[in-house]
Amino acid sequence: EWKGAPELTGSDGWSFKPRGRIQLDAGSVSAPDGFSDSGLGFGSELRRAFIGVEGEIPGGFGYRAEVDVAASAVEITDLYITYSPSDAVTLTAGNHKPFWGLEEMTSDLFVSFTERAALNTAFGYERRLGLSASYSAGPFVAQGGVFTDNVADLNDDGNNFWSLDGRLVFAPKIGDGQMHVGGSVHWRDLNDGADSVRYRVRPFIHTPDVRFADTGAISARRETGYGLEAAYIQGPFHATGEAHWQRVDRPGAIADPTFFGGYAEAGMFLTRGDTRGYRGGAFDRVKPANPVGEGGFGAVQVNLRYDFLDLIDAGVVGGKQDIYGVALVWTPTDFTRLMLNYGHVVYDRAALATASGDRSYAVDAVGVRAQVDF
Amino acid sequence: EWKGAPELTGSDGWSFKPRGRIQLDAGSVSAPDGFSDSGLGFGSELRRAFIGVEGEIPGGFGYRAEVDVAASAVEITDLYITYSPSDAVTLTAGNHKPFWGLEEMTSDLFVSFTERAALNTAFGYERRLGLSASYSAGPFVAQGGVFTDNVADLNDDGNNFWSLDGRLVFAPKIGDGQMHVGGSVHWRDLNDGADSVRYRVRPFIHTPDVRFADTGAISARRETGYGLEAAYIQGPFHATGEAHWQRVDRPGAIADPTFFGGYAEAGMFLTRGDTRGYRGGAFDRVKPANPVGEGGFGAVQVNLRYDFLDLIDAGVVGGKQDIYGVALVWTPTDFTRLMLNYGHVVYDRAALATASGDRSYAVDAVGVRAQVDF
Amino acid sequence: EWKGAPELTGSDGWSFKPRGRIQLDAGSVSAPDGFSDSGLGFGSELRRAFIGVEGEIPGGFGYRAEVDVAASAVEITDLYITYSPSDAVTLTAGNHKPFWGLEEMTSDLFVSFTERAALNTAFGYERRLGLSASYSAGPFVAQGGVFTDNVADLNDDGNNFWSLDGRLVFAPKIGDGQMHVGGSVHWRDLNDGADSVRYRVRPFIHTPDVRFADTGAISARRETGYGLEAAYIQGPFHATGEAHWQRVDRPGAIADPTFFGGYAEAGMFLTRGDTRGYRGGAFDRVKPANPVGEGGFGAVQVNLRYDFLDLIDAGVVGGKQDIYGVALVWTPTDFTRLMLNYGHVVYDRAALATASGDRSYAVDAVGVRAQVDF
Repeated sequence: EWKGAPELTGSDGWSFKPRGRIQLDAGSVSAPDGFSDSGLGFGSELRRAFIGVEGEIPGGFGYRAEVDVAASAVEITDLYITYSPSDAVTLTAGNHKPFWGLEEMTSDLFVSFTERAALNTAFGYERRLGLSASYSAGPFVAQGGVFTDNVADLNDDGNNFWSLDGRLVFAPKIGDGQMHVGGSVHWRDLNDGADSVRYRVRPFIHTPDVRFADTGAISARRETGYGLEAAYIQGPFHATGEAHWQRVDRPGAIADPTFFGGYAEAGMFLTRGDTRGYRGGAFDRVKPANPVGEGGFGAVQVNLRYDFLDLIDAGVVGGKQDIYGVALVWTPTDFTRLMLNYGHVVYDRAALATASGDRSYAVDAVGVRAQVDF
Repeated sequence: EWKGAPELTGSDGWSFKPRGRIQLDAGSVSAPDGFSDSGLGFGSELRRAFIGVEGEIPGGFGYRAEVDVAASAVEITDLYITYSPSDAVTLTAGNHKPFWGLEEMTSDLFVSFTERAALNTAFGYERRLGLSASYSAGPFVAQGGVFTDNVADLNDDGNNFWSLDGRLVFAPKIGDGQMHVGGSVHWRDLNDGADSVRYRVRPFIHTPDVRFADTGAISARRETGYGLEAAYIQGPFHATGEAHWQRVDRPGAIADPTFFGGYAEAGMFLTRGDTRGYRGGAFDRVKPANPVGEGGFGAVQVNLRYDFLDLIDAGVVGGKQDIYGVALVWTPTDFTRLMLNYGHVVYDRAALATASGDRSYAVDAVGVRAQVDF
Repeated sequence: EWKGAPELTGSDGWSFKPRGRIQLDAGSVSAPDGFSDSGLGFGSELRRAFIGVEGEIPGGFGYRAEVDVAASAVEITDLYITYSPSDAVTLTAGNHKPFWGLEEMTSDLFVSFTERAALNTAFGYERRLGLSASYSAGPFVAQGGVFTDNVADLNDDGNNFWSLDGRLVFAPKIGDGQMHVGGSVHWRDLNDGADSVRYRVRPFIHTPDVRFADTGAISARRETGYGLEAAYIQGPFHATGEAHWQRVDRPGAIADPTFFGGYAEAGMFLTRGDTRGYRGGAFDRVKPANPVGEGGFGAVQVNLRYDFLDLIDAGVVGGKQDIYGVALVWTPTDFTRLMLNYGHVVYDRAALATASGDRSYAVDAVGVRAQVDF
């Protein structure tokens, strides 16, 4: 069976499938007046280059192992072993996502803009080594686990972070519409009196290594995160939004800040018969009703988003960021995608100042992506 | 045909098979009184993440290429080309193991504890770039080759080590028992007046980067190694042991030390019908008689080991290490494995001293592993 | 279908094929009298270890993703997405070769010596991230594109090189002979007043990290390259040659040098029925008429080459290098290869001086390679 690449299956429960994705990006971010950085202006990059495998083993076992080599280095992404004693329950051990929120749990192959909303990057959402359980029953999905840290960070022998992460989703069908509401909580102990966190994010696209919104490293003992998420899909239309709070317990008498990020998004397919995929508590693949190669033009979608991030609280001034974004997404076939998006990004009390000391300004960002996956 | 992953075969001698393994570890090592290291206590890590391929090419040729990305970097493991003019003879060129000894030649997928006996790590057993021949006839296996160094170390242009390595195995069936006796010799010229070697090993498990037994770097011109090995498998029972001597030729008038490592091990399957695999001069895969998924519980094995390492000789004081270890190994199916092991590790004149200057102490280590391979 | 590895194909335009190559090298380069470098003398290395995949997606899309891990690191080689609106036209986006010249466009699996002619390395021919189009009609091939830089170099945020590259090939069949003539032009803007280029090359083989011919870093604003190429294949015989000029626009009043490299080569198969492969404007795979494994001995070829490089102009004295080379190539089967080559390398005003200050000397180099690909 072909799912981008061939999935080989045996008669007794075996399966094996290669996995991969290529995302090629180019883009440009304007500089605020009186601000100069070599990363601004035109840039191009290999955004992601995943290669991996996944498979099933008789007895209810499975695995996925995938790495990203885009930076000419090895970054381990999903790398885990699963055991499913029943259809409803899956236990997972390894490097995987701690159930952050709707957009973070949605594959980067299927998100609405080239980059996810600012909160996902700013609050350090990443895959971590852990042990988790997932339970689904009708429209409900419950997920929870205990995690240490990203496998790369665990190479540091002194690393002893650990966290508890859980998420609940209620996703009923309403007529022919798909509803989704959910929430997640995250508690992490840095387990070390002398540790720190840093929240920051690039301006709308990924090519420049510039972060106008940036708390800098701030001393920390614990992180507590809360997220709310909602979405609705009806035929060509979808709307979705999230709100996340991230509280940092700082040592001693230092005040504990709570940062906030959220977004609201709506999108519409312009081509007849197309809709966003949804499965298991996250958006899924778009399968064009009339793909290129079968006499059609593929699926064309327009998305609008307002994205807000507030990194200012309790004496920490990392900036506020408002993004007004629009994306045009062309999906010629199930496994190919071209994206063009534009964002107007407004900063208030940003981390980076212009030559005249100004920290409140706006930049414009435009990005394109060509994508294939299998 | 499924061997964890599908092996694709052509009608005329072609074959191709993906390869991979995932080992997830967690564990804890206690600290001696008055000793502190951030690596001790609880730790977790991705122990191994191999991905690779192997295949056969008509005309008697073959290849294997596999890398370990567990450390978020590329470590080349088996990467070689083979040519077999007949069933009995195989020539191998590339990065492969210089026929160290029974446990080192046994895949880490099939060893009795999460880590091999101390001597294998301490004496620097590793894969190296070389050219070798292997000959088998009835119960005899003869292996020998000439090697330079690990392919990663060869990136250093000044590296000009070379070695001769050979091993002989006699492995007759005695009734329905499998006997194994063997020996190996290793001679290595560091080829440089100003070079050094370092012998050291972690305490029983791999998560902490702490070595209580450690010679430090000692000046050296040549290494000479000798190993003896024996094993016996009878139904659910196995016993095995090895003894290795490593002599270092040091420059000028400095005395030449000989270090020693050895172990003795016995194990028993608690589940009916299970036995250790053996093939080609090494232990092989355990295939449970009643695997999970076919109404069974898999194979459960208990192993006991005494493991000794002596890094004290001729003025070098790297410590003596005694490990009393016990392991519980659950093999639900042919390609999955869970291990729990405990070791009491006793040091005499260790390399690391406690706050009070004590170098003779004991630590306790416990480790767990979840493993899948294909 | 087997092409070294199995190519899996679906009924509707899907295909998927693993890719890989292993090249194991050993060799020796003599030192000029009174010159010492730890890289000279015997050396061994894993020259290339590629692993990757390629596939086709219904609708005219395709991809290739391959990395070289030989240096125990990730080097991205071909990593691109293609779209073919018709048989004659292919659009390519990603990391690929900017149509340098005949030998550089020929896979390293199929070149006549273990290393390509000096000009290919010296002038920095490499894969780069870009967008290109290729058009073929009868004996004509036209290729052109716009490129930024190698994906690894793009990790440097300040990188803003870009180039235009084009190549034309006319390759008619003349009787049963294959003719090839072509030319290419390359224009690159370094886009930065303070940038530099460096042209240099190893002596004939790759094991030592020594470059006797080396311009050092020279300040530069733009590069302009021109190449001419010709080849002829008739049964067991082939002849080929190229000439490339590389002009560097240097800042301000500094004189602009033009460097030159070229080679002439002839080869002959000693085994009956064998010939060099040719396809799409480049040499292709040798498929022995009587391979090992089917009662034959494979293909044996002898190649002779004169290779010239001149890195001296306009005040830059990087040395002149003349190589007189001979190669013996044994191709047991379509996907295996053994090479032995010898080169006498003569330097004039080389970059590296002997103890007595001499910069004009000669060295001898011999190299062997074992190769498998799939």
